[in-house]
Amino acid sequence: MSKGIISKDEDYSQWFNDLVIKADLAEYAPVRGCMIIKPYGYSIWEKMQAALDKMFKDTGHSNAYFPLFIPKSFFSKEASHVDGFAKECAVVTHYRLKNDGEGNIIVDEDAKLEEELIVRPTSETIIWHTYKGWIQSYRDLPLLINQWANVVRWEMRTRLFLRTTEFLWQEGHTAHATAQEAVAETEQMLEVYADFVENWMGVPVVKGRKTANERFAGALDTYCIEALMQDGKALQAGTSHFLGQNFAKAFDVKFTTKEGTLEHVWATSWGVSTRLMGALIMTHSDDAGLVLPPKLAPIQVVAVPIYKHDEELENIRTYIKGLSAELRAKGISIKFDDRDTQRPGFKFAEYELKGVPLRIAIGSRDMQNGTVELARRDTRTKETVTQDGLANHIEQLLEDIQTNIYQKAFKFREENTTEVDTYDEFKRLLDEKPGFLSAHWDGTPETEQRIKDETKATIRCIPLNNKQEEGKCILTGNPSTQRVLFARAY
Amino acid sequence: MSKGIISKDEDYSQWFNDLVIKADLAEYAPVRGCMIIKPYGYSIWEKMQAALDKMFKDTGHSNAYFPLFIPKSFFSKEASHVDGFAKECAVVTHYRLKNDGEGNIIVDEDAKLEEELIVRPTSETIIWHTYKGWIQSYRDLPLLINQWANVVRWEMRTRLFLRTTEFLWQEGHTAHATAQEAVAETEQMLEVYADFVENWMGVPVVKGRKTANERFAGALDTYCIEALMQDGKALQAGTSHFLGQNFAKAFDVKFTTKEGTLEHVWATSWGVSTRLMGALIMTHSDDAGLVLPPKLAPIQVVAVPIYKHDEELENIRTYIKGLSAELRAKGISIKFDDRDTQRPGFKFAEYELKGVPLRIAIGSRDMQNGTVELARRDTRTKETVTQDGLANHIEQLLEDIQTNIYQKAFKFREENTTEVDTYDEFKRLLDEKPGFLSAHWDGTPETEQRIKDETKATIRCIPLNNKQEEGKCILTGNPSTQRVLFARAY
Ligand SMILES: [Zn+2]
Ligand SMILES: [Zn+2]
Repeated sequence: MSKGIISKDEDYSQWFNDLVIKADLAEYAPVRGCMIIKPYGYSIWEKMQAALDKMFKDTGHSNAYFPLFIPKSFFSKEASHVDGFAKECAVVTHYRLKNDGEGNIIVDEDAKLEEELIVRPTSETIIWHTYKGWIQSYRDLPLLINQWANVVRWEMRTRLFLRTTEFLWQEGHTAHATAQEAVAETEQMLEVYADFVENWMGVPVVKGRKTANERFAGALDTYCIEALMQDGKALQAGTSHFLGQNFAKAFDVKFTTKEGTLEHVWATSWGVSTRLMGALIMTHSDDAGLVLPPKLAPIQVVAVPIYKHDEELENIRTYIKGLSAELRAKGISIKFDDRDTQRPGFKFAEYELKGVPLRIAIGSRDMQNGTVELARRDTRTKETVTQDGLANHIEQLLEDIQTNIYQKAFKFREENTTEVDTYDEFKRLLDEKPGFLSAHWDGTPETEQRIKDETKATIRCIPLNNKQEEGKCILTGNPSTQRVLFARAY
Repeated sequence: MSKGIISKDEDYSQWFNDLVIKADLAEYAPVRGCMIIKPYGYSIWEKMQAALDKMFKDTGHSNAYFPLFIPKSFFSKEASHVDGFAKECAVVTHYRLKNDGEGNIIVDEDAKLEEELIVRPTSETIIWHTYKGWIQSYRDLPLLINQWANVVRWEMRTRLFLRTTEFLWQEGHTAHATAQEAVAETEQMLEVYADFVENWMGVPVVKGRKTANERFAGALDTYCIEALMQDGKALQAGTSHFLGQNFAKAFDVKFTTKEGTLEHVWATSWGVSTRLMGALIMTHSDDAGLVLPPKLAPIQVVAVPIYKHDEELENIRTYIKGLSAELRAKGISIKFDDRDTQRPGFKFAEYELKGVPLRIAIGSRDMQNGTVELARRDTRTKETVTQDGLANHIEQLLEDIQTNIYQKAFKFREENTTEVDTYDEFKRLLDEKPGFLSAHWDGTPETEQRIKDETKATIRCIPLNNKQEEGKCILTGNPSTQRVLFARAY
């Protein structure tokens, strides 16, 4: 089959788009900037959701659901939040359509809302409005809630999974009695995200803090995990915010302490979105198609029979049936592709495109010899192995693949993280060898902004447990105590 | 604890509202008609979702995600659909807010959409627009897709779970090569719904077809399951629609048959929503609070220790720890409530309110005697049983409760389903003994409408496999061949 995917080296951006379309992950909707997540793409997202949801529950969180619509006035209540979020958003102004008598459906001007409603770009405001009713005493704390939802941010330039007007995400919103507890929660959820992204998605991340410029609107501190894509651009994979008492003050949420005093509550929020699909695709895939980590692959193993006569197929089917039962008992999913409308070579290419981690090819000769051919998607290597103990061998191979793709990505990131000490070298590398640039910065928003304006590189984060060393800012030469990570980013 | 719930007999509607609020299931949002689903309510909905999702996948369906926004013009494409759905809806007209310079946030009139967007009330139009790109040949069929999503219908009178402006649901949308296949799918999904509602929710249903008046806008045939609430009003718990070729024609979706001809595709759609939460609550609960079926209860068993000294508590804790391990191995969830801030009596009332199916009370005397006290939520009966074999006993009891609440509801429905032969009796019963009224109807929409106008009773369904018998319409006296089910409904 012709895959219709441009080469990564030729045009990375086009390669990504081609791959998302050809591998049946998603497509653009007829509504500007919106996305349709196709069944194959959605089944990967479902696996992500299931793993994350379990991690949230294991750390004591419960799910709830808050409304899609937020009254416009809510956005004005937290001063910095409104600038960050109430700008580019979908505004509901009317609640009825009518027929104009000439066969056209038009907005009914008699059904104008008194106060416009905003389609949620994030839910802090409506949630903190609600928490006011839920929190009275220290006994109501901590309040640990998560929501799986769709959100809308009116984006001018959109890309499938990476930046779409509507996207799917989860947003955690917690309330605590002390600043210390809230910071601990913020850090815990960053660890949960790092754990998931590294150990499920196989994507290595740098954990760090955002500079004041890059903070979430309304946060005192924003923690993030940053990943490096194959084209040397960074991608923010998740954020966890310490909100201080900003929202509690804006929405007047106080609690009675054990000692009987009345205090404002401390808050966090944290989220990951369908953007993770973009990170997953761009970290591992190649010109032949997707490469999926076994832990998130909707189909982990595919078996393709190679036969001429129906009796041969039936022999193979019987064998695969037994193998499938063994694999399912191990929690491994296998698909037997016995379609007679496609040739094996076509199927091979199709499962490569779909990123199935392991392919079994099995013919009559194999059945006689008691062997199968195994092909790994990640290394594109093949081996002939005995049917004896095959289920165990497959189980081990899937673990190897999970580890290998992480290590490969980790090696790539290490090779593309460079310490730079001059602004000239900084600019040269951004063009010649893009990646993470570790450089000294004088700590001012002005310097950060000028570097961004001149190079399009932003400070991705100040890594946690950063080494303290004396140095000079690459732009101003002013003294600095630590390096920060710069990159151009998605 | 004072539960603050009015008696069912005094005011059923208020009882329902009180219960939803006091049991922490949901509350009204600051946006008119919208609902906040609280963690306890949402955890029941999650269990419903998980069970339904598995049933959908076991019948070959995949999940996908389509956009929240639908261009206004899409609604005009299917003539009957537009009248049913494009009326009361949320309309997005702008995509930006701005500061008016006086500290107010206002809609930016420069950011007016060329074509208004409708927040989806249901997704047939955008999905069939998309299917046009996905379906070319008979090899692409059947296409079996489901979506879990939020939808918005601008309701004037709202009630928590039963009718809210925004609600959560799933909508299945399938495409088939033949009418016969599509009808089979429509019927299969009705069976799936009936299976879930009866065997998981413990709510008996009548399976039937809607009359033309009550059909989904755009459907050739609407199948439904109808349940009877404790106040004698009916509740439509799920619908499954045979859409014929209406949407395929409206969106020009054709496929090449095996024989090489070009034909329009046949369609179905089917859905259930958070309305099911309303049905669940209203079918089983009582003045003491919720009654939950064990299969959907977030906590199936609660253990409350009764003690004076800490050593006693530690003994009890050790015992419950062992029991918990045994129960978890059976897939049964148990909570040990060792809070020292509340007395046992308070806890008993709280878990009654929350509908926990089984309560264990255990004190020092019990520990000496090797017994525990078990209290069933459904019958509110208690028994003292030996600790010997307790896990097995509990497992059996939970099954008994699941069966018992279904049977109780089934008996109630049978006692409140009455055959009536005159319009006077019909009207009298609606007021004096509301329930399902099985009556002859002459088959005309005019008669149906007049009965509705005069009595507020609607034809809930024409039951499947309905007995054919000669009779006379209760209103007109015209000949009829079968009885249909009337009721006032939610
Ligand atoms: Zn090997
Ligand atoms: Zn018993």
